[in-house]
Amino acid sequence: MPKINAGRLLSELRRFAQFGAYRTGVHRPSYSKEDMDSRRWLAQQYEAVGLQAHIDGVGNVLGMPRSQRQSLLIGSHLESQNYAGWLDGALGVIYGLEIARTFAETTDCAGLLIAPVAWADEEGHYLSMLGSRSFVGDIDEAEIDLAVNVDHGLPLRDALRAAGLAGVPRSLLEPGRHVGYLEAHIEQGDALEASSKRIGVVTSIVGIWQYSIVFHGIQNHAGTTRMAIRKDAGVAAAMLAMAIAKRFPEVAGPRSVWTTGRITMEPGAPSIIPGKAEMLFQFRDSEMPRLESLDAVLMELIQGVATKTGCRADIERTEAGEPSQMDPAFQVAIENAAARHAPGASVRMPSGAGHDAQVVARKLRAAMLFVPSIGGISHHWTENSDDADLVLGCQVLADAAETILRREGGEM
Amino acid sequence: MPKINAGRLLSELRRFAQFGAYRTGVHRPSYSKEDMDSRRWLAQQYEAVGLQAHIDGVGNVLGMPRSQRQSLLIGSHLESQNYAGWLDGALGVIYGLEIARTFAETTDCAGLLIAPVAWADEEGHYLSMLGSRSFVGDIDEAEIDLAVNVDHGLPLRDALRAAGLAGVPRSLLEPGRHVGYLEAHIEQGDALEASSKRIGVVTSIVGIWQYSIVFHGIQNHAGTTRMAIRKDAGVAAAMLAMAIAKRFPEVAGPRSVWTTGRITMEPGAPSIIPGKAEMLFQFRDSEMPRLESLDAVLMELIQGVATKTGCRADIERTEAGEPSQMDPAFQVAIENAAARHAPGASVRMPSGAGHDAQVVARKLRAAMLFVPSIGGISHHWTENSDDADLVLGCQVLADAAETILRREGGEM
Repeated sequence: MPKINAGRLLSELRRFAQFGAYRTGVHRPSYSKEDMDSRRWLAQQYEAVGLQAHIDGVGNVLGMPRSQRQSLLIGSHLESQNYAGWLDGALGVIYGLEIARTFAETTDCAGLLIAPVAWADEEGHYLSMLGSRSFVGDIDEAEIDLAVNVDHGLPLRDALRAAGLAGVPRSLLEPGRHVGYLEAHIEQGDALEASSKRIGVVTSIVGIWQYSIVFHGIQNHAGTTRMAIRKDAGVAAAMLAMAIAKRFPEVAGPRSVWTTGRITMEPGAPSIIPGKAEMLFQFRDSEMPRLESLDAVLMELIQGVATKTGCRADIERTEAGEPSQMDPAFQVAIENAAARHAPGASVRMPSGAGHDAQVVARKLRAAMLFVPSIGGISHHWTENSDDADLVLGCQVLADAAETILRREGGEM
Repeated sequence: MPKINAGRLLSELRRFAQFGAYRTGVHRPSYSKEDMDSRRWLAQQYEAVGLQAHIDGVGNVLGMPRSQRQSLLIGSHLESQNYAGWLDGALGVIYGLEIARTFAETTDCAGLLIAPVAWADEEGHYLSMLGSRSFVGDIDEAEIDLAVNVDHGLPLRDALRAAGLAGVPRSLLEPGRHVGYLEAHIEQGDALEASSKRIGVVTSIVGIWQYSIVFHGIQNHAGTTRMAIRKDAGVAAAMLAMAIAKRFPEVAGPRSVWTTGRITMEPGAPSIIPGKAEMLFQFRDSEMPRLESLDAVLMELIQGVATKTGCRADIERTEAGEPSQMDPAFQVAIENAAARHAPGASVRMPSGAGHDAQVVARKLRAAMLFVPSIGGISHHWTENSDDADLVLGCQVLADAAETILRREGGEM
């Protein structure tokens, strides 16, 4: 039985939070100095465990066993959202490192191969889940050529060059090399805390449908243009947001969520009627039919607002991800491990957030484990979890990894 | 009778639009190179008419008759809104220049003194109506010290220094020096066009009440935070915009207008629930009691939204201007001049836009003349007016100026 080193796990997590430390969280955007320093540090740790460490052409850090026998991939992403939490991503990465170390130190785990990994840009500073998509062969050079930073607009290629990754090949998943993939992550919600559970066994990962909705009105003077003749694009955007708030609950499922992340009015001056307003809107659900019906309702609402306000609407669906199902046998392995270390403390749940596991699951059997987030807070520097939960999560994942590897993948 | 030179007027207007030309409009923000070039050019023209030209410490361009007899101030502002129209402000300034030239050339106008003027930063790139407020002694150094640019945040002091105005004294209105003030401006609305009138005689200028309303919610993950527990500041802002759209018409007067110019959500990312949303809102009316009741209704609506959404609201009233009345005798002078040149083509109307005339009116008898805006469009580079209307407006203002000056101000 692999027994993880709790003290080492916690101190490595804290040490890792020093890369881009911001208040009690981190600011570690993709390919920033802090991000690349953390990736080089991690590669060194992988080497020290006897693994073949490699930072590939998009920044993925891979720790491959030197043996050709099947190994189990364990990891998550390294970069953070801007000025966000210390555990989002890093937790799963440091779990992978700790489990690799533990297995290397545990004699009766000899021959059970852990391949720890840290993906790049899951948070989408340039391309959402860039690293895992590159690893499973789901991205081409042309898409990388076109990508720019969502905050400052600089090309991904420039960032890769500045990070010293220009010309470095991208590592691809070798068929048959891995038993599967495990990822641990903070829940980022309050379901576990609210139900006093300590381990979430992820059943599926939601599909995210993202839209850019632009209303075109008529820009004019805010003092001299009579209300009767206005075509105010800003009013159209606010009207749509309220129409969604009223109508979506009638169509949504118990776990559907929808969010207007931004409304940008142009020119955005106090004395000018907005001639243009862009709204970033998204919804999520774990069932494809529901995603499709929410999409249909949205189109209907946009049409209604355009008619009422006289503002033309341009709609771009920038993302329409399918929900992803986690491997049933892997779920059982995590569930049983949780039952051994914290009886009655685990619960099955879908993931409302997107994760690299949904990408890897297209090619490998995959599963995820959640640990509770205090107050359900994440994507904010106050994000945190109890140390005891951080330790339990890693031990449960280590046990599940052993179970999965002993059955040599195939015949579970 | 002063007869203006139509060809010269139009060519000077077009020549002036070259300072910061942008598409068919201009981009001439306060104290930019284009703005200062245009001010120096104008000062040269004033000198050439025999006036004592001076650019004062805030950029006001004054053309003072060398005689000490009473003169009539005629002008408007020179700078433009960002990427906006070629006539907004410039029209009234070039009218002042053309009328000064015409009076200087017209023998039977000898001794009737025109003092053309171009105010600074009426558009409020730093401080709304800075130039005219400075001229009437309604601004102190401390306020100038604190002012920053609304777009890029750089201090007004730095802009003045860069423009070569550091240490230059600010010109103050000399009591008894002027008979009054006339300002011509494009209507910036469609009232004249809609009623087939060509001259607007302004009766009053609206008061503008401007607000910054900030809702504070809880920033969180857009995928994992259940709808039931969200405190979405962006939804609160949209809800307020819609509550205003529903309730204000019940309280508003026939010419009340209200506008949400901008909604800024933080952090503004697609997958993060906005924890903060700022709304720039304003309304305008020409009657003080109505402005006060609109303010009361707004406070009530904000309170209602804060209660419904659980988002705390911070309210800052950044502007609460009183409506300003134009001089009755000056209005008659403009009306009679219009009747001579275009019988039945003038109409009395309030101004929905703020103008320097409302500031000067605190110290001097003042009046305004409007010419039609094609399609009622302004604060946009497509802003325009018919040449015939541009010429008529200037001739009418010249005649009105003569009438006012012949009566030697006082005894009208």
